Order: sequence, then C-alpha cells, then structure tokens
Amino acid sequence: MQIDVCFTPDDYLASSASVVVVIDVLRATTSIATAFANGCRKLVPAATVAEAVALKQDRFPDALLAGERKGLIIPGFQLGNSPFEYVRNIVDGKTIIMTTTNGTRALNFARNAAAVFTAGFVNATAVCECLANMGRDVVFLCAGTEGRFSIEDVLCAGLLVRCCGLSATLSDKALAARAMYEGVRSELLETVMASSHGRYLREIGFADDVAFCLRHDIFAVVPQYCDGIITIA
Amino acid sequence: MQIDVCFTPDDYLASSASVVVVIDVLRATTSIATAFANGCRKLVPAATVAEAVALKQDRFPDALLAGERKGLIIPGFQLGNSPFEYVRNIVDGKTIIMTTTNGTRALNFARNAAAVFTAGFVNATAVCECLANMGRDVVFLCAGTEGRFSIEDVLCAGLLVRCCGLSATLSDKALAARAMYEGVRSELLETVMASSHGRYLREIGFADDVAFCLRHDIFAVVPQYCDGIITIA
Repeated sequence: MQIDVCFTPDDYLASSASVVVVIDVLRATTSIATAFANGCRKLVPAATVAEAVALKQDRFPDALLAGERKGLIIPGFQLGNSPFEYVRNIVDGKTIIMTTTNGTRALNFARNAAAVFTAGFVNATAVCECLANMGRDVVFLCAGTEGRFSIEDVLCAGLLVRCCGLSATLSDKALAARAMYEGVRSELLETVMASSHGRYLREIGFADDVAFCLRHDIFAVVPQYCDGIITIA
Repeated sequence: MQIDVCFTPDDYLASSASVVVVIDVLRATTSIATAFANGCRKLVPAATVAEAVALKQDRFPDALLAGERKGLIIPGFQLGNSPFEYVRNIVDGKTIIMTTTNGTRALNFARNAAAVFTAGFVNATAVCECLANMGRDVVFLCAGTEGRFSIEDVLCAGLLVRCCGLSATLSDKALAARAMYEGVRSELLETVMASSHGRYLREIGFADDVAFCLRHDIFAVVPQYCDGIITIA
C-alpha cells in the first residue's frame, strides 16, 4: 500500500489505479459528513450555481440547494456551507445538490479514480478503516482554497496518513503531512485559526464552524463519490 | 515582516520586493556553505555543463569546475556535489563554477529578487540573524528535486521560520513548514533517510552526506547571490 498526498488539486495527476480521498475541512467535506450522519440520502456536487439549479429542475426536483460563494450562502439556496445547517430535521431522507468553491472542484479532479471518498477530521477514523479494508494505494487530495495550499486540509491528510500509514510506503508529501500534523496536533485550533482560511471564516462570522470542523471522529460515515453522486459507502 | 515558503521553484512568483533564501539541503546549498566556510572566494552557479565550461574558458580560467548530474560528479570536473569534497586545501582562496540539478535552477528563479541568500541546516542560524537584521519580507524557496516537493528542503525552511518567525506574519506554507519541522525534529535523520532523495543518495553511496547535510549550525557563513555570483554577505 502506497500513500501520497496532493497539497492542491493541481498536484493531482489522474490515476485510474488509485483510491482518492478528497479533503476540504473548511467546510465542504465536513458538512458532507455531517449531512450523511444526519440522514441525508444522496448529495450531488455541482460545479456552478447554474448547474446546481439545472440539476434540481431536470433530475432532482425535491432536492435541497446548498452551497457557498466567498463563504456565504448563495441567494435563493436553502443551505450554505456551515455544518451547523445540516441538522437532522432539515436533511434527513433528503437529496442535496451542493456547489462550493473548492470541494466541488477537487471532486471533479478525482472523478475518474477507481474509488473516491470524502473526509474531514469529523470522520477521519471511519475513512481510514474503510481504506485499510480495501488495502489499495491511496491519494489524499487536499482541496485547498481557490487552488492555493490550505494548511487545514494538509493537517487532516496528515492525521489520515498517521491513522492508516503504519505499514504503508509514504511519499515525501505523505511524510510531510504526517510530520505537520504531529507538529501541531496539541494546538490544532490555534494553528487553523491563524491560517489564511481560518482567519477569513472568523472575519465573516464563522469562528464556531472552524472549531467544529476540527473535532475528531464525531461521525462514523464514509461518503463515497460515484457517477456524479455521493452516497454512504 | 512577512514570511512565506515556496515548496518548489514553480511555487515562486518573482517579486522584486522580497528577500529570497534558496534551500537545497541535499546537497547544493550545504556544499556552498561548506565551500565558503573553507575559504572559497566566489562561487558561480551555471545552469548547464556547457555553460560551466564556457564560464571557465571565458571569464574564470583559474576556477574549479564543480557539480553533479543524477547525484554523481560530472566527468572532467574537479568537484562533485558532496560537501566532504569542499575541504580547505582544495577550495581555499578559489573560485568555483558549480552546476547542479536543483539548486542552480532555484537560484535562477530567484535572480531578480532584491537580495538572494542560500541556506541549509549547516548555516541556518547565521542566515536567520542576517534576515532579522534586514527586517524585510522573506521567501524561503525550496529547490525540490527535479521540480518535485522534497521534504528535507521544507524541513529546513521550517527550522528557518521557527528561528526568525517569532514576530513575523506567517503564510499557510510557512506555518506548515514550521509545523513539519516541529513534528520530526527529534527524528530528523530517520525522516530524511526515508525520503525520496535521501533513499536515492543512500543507494548511490552517499548516506554520510545525508547525515552531514542535517547537522545544525556548524558554519556561520551567509552566502549571497548577486549579479550571477555567490560571495559571503
């Protein structure tokens, strides 16, 4: 088993042989895990607002529209990108169409991989157990922020490497991500609060979201992206 | 004072405003520091073997030719890229023309910056003291290996951030490099020996070089690259 980490989507060279885990801690893959933990049936990523609206009109008329631009809910949509919005009485049994700036783009990069999962701190161990059972080469694909390196995603990749890399061969970036996580695991919240994306979310009023997105293993779900739709693996 | 880290030369967008520190731990910037600590007067980086030979013929007839391809000394050259070759009785008072795969390329990327220095673990504190005295924004530019991320360069950048970043504003990559260094500082040798470039150098017989390149602060020199020539700052 070989483990690699892509720090940004541009780092990723499509490989049909690999299992890909997409990580967008702030906040898409955290909200996705939260949605499934609260009963969401399927989640359809969309690249643009127009695509999301068209998907609802043409294929999923009962779906909730969700997503953000610049961190804020899209006008006319039912849900933004805060995990606190994805509560059971809203998402249980529902289909959600979601368009976000970074997470959706990263999923699109990975779409031709043999298997694609999504992970955050909130469901890290569940994803690692799934990967260990598969025993295949894995790439952790960090969504980043508008194509740029985002430390919170790489820290989560580092936790995942640590969690499932015991007997694996690690690339330099996998070694680096694990080292990075080890270096700040006792001050994870302070580090991410001081990061570029953390500071921005605090500025627009989402400091509580940052703290929530760093909670470990509060959900046991493993969202899997297949043929354009995310369901529970 | 703002600090950024570029994980590879391609990460670097030329900025005339910035001070750039080029890092190629294995082994160019370690050998450069060693050469100056042992009396080398000037060192001229060359992009290609042909350019190195032409520089000697046209401008520096007394210079030593130095460098590597795939880690091995270039046929007909006096010096390879091992710091153990740059001893006083060979380099004292001399001009060296050096062409290496990664370090030279990174220096070329940085050539238009306001000031360019080279650093490794061996001269980290001396470089940090110089940067602190300047008090300007700094970019640590990791040479990588053939354009790819190389953990040893980023770990050295992390040490440099830790050393001079106390009152600075850190980018996400600077935060990440520092976290990475903190995460493995007690097992630095094992980590770099397990890295891609570390493994390669061991395979071709340079394990002792890897250990030497990770020694902290054995030299107090600050090599500065200006108008195509490196001298002591």
